[in-house]
Amino acid sequence: MSPLLSFLLLLLFFSTSSARSILRTLPEDTNNPSSLISNGGSVSASDDLFCDSWRLSAETNNAGKWATIPQNCVGFVGSYMTGEQYASDSHVAERESLDFAKSVEMKGGSKDCWVFDVDETLLCNAPYYADNGWGSIKFNETSFNAWVDSAKAPAIPPSLKLYEELLDLGFSIVLLTGRTEDQRNITEENLLFAGYHSWSKLILRGDSDKGTTAVAYKSKKRAELEAEGYTIHGNSGDQWSDLYGSPMAARSFKLPNPMYYIS
Amino acid sequence: MSPLLSFLLLLLFFSTSSARSILRTLPEDTNNPSSLISNGGSVSASDDLFCDSWRLSAETNNAGKWATIPQNCVGFVGSYMTGEQYASDSHVAERESLDFAKSVEMKGGSKDCWVFDVDETLLCNAPYYADNGWGSIKFNETSFNAWVDSAKAPAIPPSLKLYEELLDLGFSIVLLTGRTEDQRNITEENLLFAGYHSWSKLILRGDSDKGTTAVAYKSKKRAELEAEGYTIHGNSGDQWSDLYGSPMAARSFKLPNPMYYIS
Repeated sequence: MSPLLSFLLLLLFFSTSSARSILRTLPEDTNNPSSLISNGGSVSASDDLFCDSWRLSAETNNAGKWATIPQNCVGFVGSYMTGEQYASDSHVAERESLDFAKSVEMKGGSKDCWVFDVDETLLCNAPYYADNGWGSIKFNETSFNAWVDSAKAPAIPPSLKLYEELLDLGFSIVLLTGRTEDQRNITEENLLFAGYHSWSKLILRGDSDKGTTAVAYKSKKRAELEAEGYTIHGNSGDQWSDLYGSPMAARSFKLPNPMYYIS
Repeated sequence: MSPLLSFLLLLLFFSTSSARSILRTLPEDTNNPSSLISNGGSVSASDDLFCDSWRLSAETNNAGKWATIPQNCVGFVGSYMTGEQYASDSHVAERESLDFAKSVEMKGGSKDCWVFDVDETLLCNAPYYADNGWGSIKFNETSFNAWVDSAKAPAIPPSLKLYEELLDLGFSIVLLTGRTEDQRNITEENLLFAGYHSWSKLILRGDSDKGTTAVAYKSKKRAELEAEGYTIHGNSGDQWSDLYGSPMAARSFKLPNPMYYIS
């Protein structure tokens, strides 16, 4: 259908509606929060509607701190992560990032920097979360660390593409992760396994960073990078705690992650 | 289907997939940005996939500054705005906001404050955008101001609900809008028409605020509110420029708006 025809049909449709009735309202029962948050475990179209709204609220940080995904969204999150929408969302994030990267006025030398988080930004832990209820089960550090030790997390394909493109554009890549120093070797092994290479720095939590929030830890490390002369043009992360805090990158890119939240 | 059964089915499905193949990749042609951004105006399932990703990139601010929606997303945005998903997204934003509001430790007196933007936060301009290509046509100040002068914008129902709930909880409501002082009377008329009442302040752009970005203008006004003794607990807006900048509210809530961007 041509855009003009679509537009005329829309005009026709809306010219017959009053201004008041243009917005859909939800049926009374879905305005009941208890029916939205949980309906006893059954999966329905209204679950999908709610779960998609919940996902948006997590992606925009409206949801605040949360420990597990809503129990009625397990199927939704699994389908999202393994389906076309996550692939497409990651791909569009890569396009937006690259568009910006191409517009950056580089200062030259080796201090034009792009910061990447690791988990759910470069590496994909969906195989672990598929075996662990897609975020519906409280985080278990022991079993997650066993997965990390396997060093088998695949790349998120559009992130690997962006990574290569940024290297080609002359950016220095800094990896800034909440993983700890004792996981350095296994993290390097996994990154290489997934196809990443040629990073300038891999920053992990040291002893002095323990017990701080991700926002505080990552902001401090970005400040140290700036003190070393780096200009942080871009920052990619799946958590707002990767991106928020002072100093911030010139542009920050939020990658999708409906499976877990880190403050 | 019970959560346990869903989970077991997922386990079965993923135990037969390798870690590498758990993620869907997009067909080669959709990895071509030109095919994603525009496919000559036709509307297809891949348009919906892309447009939903584009909407997420706008909602998370990944998209940066944009003047019009992608031309192949006119139908998508119209369907979204008039369908159940926008209603549900607005409703979940209201739930998240209210959950936070109920947890606030009020200081007492009349300075516990919640800031609301007006357009696409309290008032809905979808009737105007339905007649103007859902954001696909460059912003026309003359025709938009004529719509504003009609004072007929309806409330976004979950926002009106939140507004009443916040008044009941004892919050002082401050309205902070990019509309200008000469639109004060018509804005008050429209807010009352839509059901809003009892606000403490309605702040509009004065002569000295002209030519500044929304981020700078709104941050300055929030600073003035704090200097007057207000504690800004919450801030609701459909633009990141409503929410970003110093000082920020204790919690910010991004309302959905895929129709336009204000920097």
